[in-house]
Amino acid sequence: MKTRAAVAFEAGKALEVIEVDLEGPRAGEVLVEIMATGICHTDAFTLSGDDPEGAFPAILGHEGAGIVREVGPGVTSLKPGDHVIPLYTPECRTCNFCLNPKTNLCQAIRETQGQGVMPDGSSRFSLDGKPLRHYMGCSTFSNFTVLPEIALAKVRQDAPFDKICYIGCGVTTGIGAVVYRAKVEPGANVVVFGLGGIGLNVIQGARMVGANKIVGVDLNPAKRELAMKFGMTDFINPGEVDDVVEAILDITGGGADYSFECIGNVNVMRQALECCHKGWGESYIIGVAGAGQEISTRPFQLVTGRSWHGVAFGGARGRTDVPTIVDWYMDGKINIDDLITHTLPLDDINQGFDLMHKGESIRSVVVY
Amino acid sequence: MKTRAAVAFEAGKALEVIEVDLEGPRAGEVLVEIMATGICHTDAFTLSGDDPEGAFPAILGHEGAGIVREVGPGVTSLKPGDHVIPLYTPECRTCNFCLNPKTNLCQAIRETQGQGVMPDGSSRFSLDGKPLRHYMGCSTFSNFTVLPEIALAKVRQDAPFDKICYIGCGVTTGIGAVVYRAKVEPGANVVVFGLGGIGLNVIQGARMVGANKIVGVDLNPAKRELAMKFGMTDFINPGEVDDVVEAILDITGGGADYSFECIGNVNVMRQALECCHKGWGESYIIGVAGAGQEISTRPFQLVTGRSWHGVAFGGARGRTDVPTIVDWYMDGKINIDDLITHTLPLDDINQGFDLMHKGESIRSVVVY
Repeated sequence: MKTRAAVAFEAGKALEVIEVDLEGPRAGEVLVEIMATGICHTDAFTLSGDDPEGAFPAILGHEGAGIVREVGPGVTSLKPGDHVIPLYTPECRTCNFCLNPKTNLCQAIRETQGQGVMPDGSSRFSLDGKPLRHYMGCSTFSNFTVLPEIALAKVRQDAPFDKICYIGCGVTTGIGAVVYRAKVEPGANVVVFGLGGIGLNVIQGARMVGANKIVGVDLNPAKRELAMKFGMTDFINPGEVDDVVEAILDITGGGADYSFECIGNVNVMRQALECCHKGWGESYIIGVAGAGQEISTRPFQLVTGRSWHGVAFGGARGRTDVPTIVDWYMDGKINIDDLITHTLPLDDINQGFDLMHKGESIRSVVVY
Repeated sequence: MKTRAAVAFEAGKALEVIEVDLEGPRAGEVLVEIMATGICHTDAFTLSGDDPEGAFPAILGHEGAGIVREVGPGVTSLKPGDHVIPLYTPECRTCNFCLNPKTNLCQAIRETQGQGVMPDGSSRFSLDGKPLRHYMGCSTFSNFTVLPEIALAKVRQDAPFDKICYIGCGVTTGIGAVVYRAKVEPGANVVVFGLGGIGLNVIQGARMVGANKIVGVDLNPAKRELAMKFGMTDFINPGEVDDVVEAILDITGGGADYSFECIGNVNVMRQALECCHKGWGESYIIGVAGAGQEISTRPFQLVTGRSWHGVAFGGARGRTDVPTIVDWYMDGKINIDDLITHTLPLDDINQGFDLMHKGESIRSVVVY
């Protein structure tokens, strides 16, 4: 079949919206009509050429929502008409990672996904007979796409695609880090570094579970208002205090019970660790640092009881947890609407990247 | 009263065994007759002058066992004749650290202890009218010493002082890290860096809780035999493999579920983290690094599920947990006898330091 898609032909160039060829689902695969997709920093990171795993030409996009249109042989958990959210972290429920309750990092199709192909090693996308690469196992910048069954979360049918697509990455990454990975308790003091799309979701996750102080740290004072709306109780502008760590110790009465780095800056990651409370403070890295960069601290920080962690996709097991997060949105427990600042047609997708680079959007969503 | 003690008059000099003055216990304090004391690397570290907190003249020693001889006003949990192990990490059971189940780092008397004085700010030891400093709140290199009630674990009376003194530091530090801090599960793969007194106790802790592979890493092949006796299943000499981390991934089938650094080398600390299993491996720093040294890694190591921790005094709450470890020894669940390679009278205490520096002892114990 034919489908319209925004194709990344080369690193550093704008996407081109064209018609490409899409082969139907093979065994264990599902054809999905994408109804909406967010534009995430990770797409921009890969498009920039800085992503060492990035390869072109490819169809980017990994934060979508859509409808199952066809299933391949052997698919049992989905049928045409089901509403789904694609999962760049799948959940096979049979690999030794899925069977270990300590992790969400299903490895069933990790290798082929990283290579931009389906689990059988081939691509479903092509142009003039030449294959185009899949991206993060999703390729939601195509109106139709094919995914493995294990990489689709089935969600309720009354949830709006143009909002819940954001649960495919940003919302889950932020809220999940609080709920599934750190398991923040009611009354805990939480510190969030970076008040972009991820940080705001960490904040509302912390509010949802009943955190006490929720301290936001950002160099941009304009972030304050929206963060307050999402549950931030205290704001620190590192440009306005002598020492960020000391300022956090003061506000929290000894340090963060949990801190989250949502920027990808290795110096901030160190601050996020060192602002933790002696004895029990836990710091979680969410942001993605530049290739080759390293984090450092004195081991004394750990020996006196702080611990250093990281989290991907919010520690969520997609097929199990994403439908729950959709419920939280529909029940009004979390706010997604105010994070989606721009909605665009596919033809204008490059404008969405421009808005992100200019810092004018929290999230832009392409609606097909 | 008068008591014999080994006094550290100056950094870098041998201890001098002399008679000093000891004031009796004030309110909340206890006079203990030390019956035996181990000589630990931490004593040597302070004596060397490298310890930034070290101050002289002082009476060192923190790994002892003895008998209560007198209690000060207000002491309710101990009486003369009780057998006790001094605790350099006390357990007041009322500070916000003791009341948080995530930590064992009681802060009730942290400040004065670090200054080498009792909680009221004064010393009980003196010589010619001039105060001598206490050390780590214990000063077990004195035949009689005074401690706060909260810094004494009451233990059973049938346990031999010359063995259980080691539970005051090394045994608890190693076994406790496995049992109380990391909470290693049966079937887990454990990797231990450094097979000295701490590492061997980590190994026997791992064996006690039913670990699967227990991999020991040490540059000295002579460590192999004793470590095998304590439960090590596999030995890696970093001098004999191309890459320690790769060798561990091979042996464990993907990486350590838990790793422990028992040396104090920041490069080894990095290896200990990076040899952990993707998704869930946890690394614990036990060793004390040199002043100002830092640990580093790529944040990707954490984002893909490894976590970095540290532990002091094995995560044990001394008054609660030390008596249990004494029971484990008396029940034959753990082996202390083979770790105590030398026994000396107080007059020969400097020989104990020599044996340690030459690597000829696992533990030397002074018996009064």
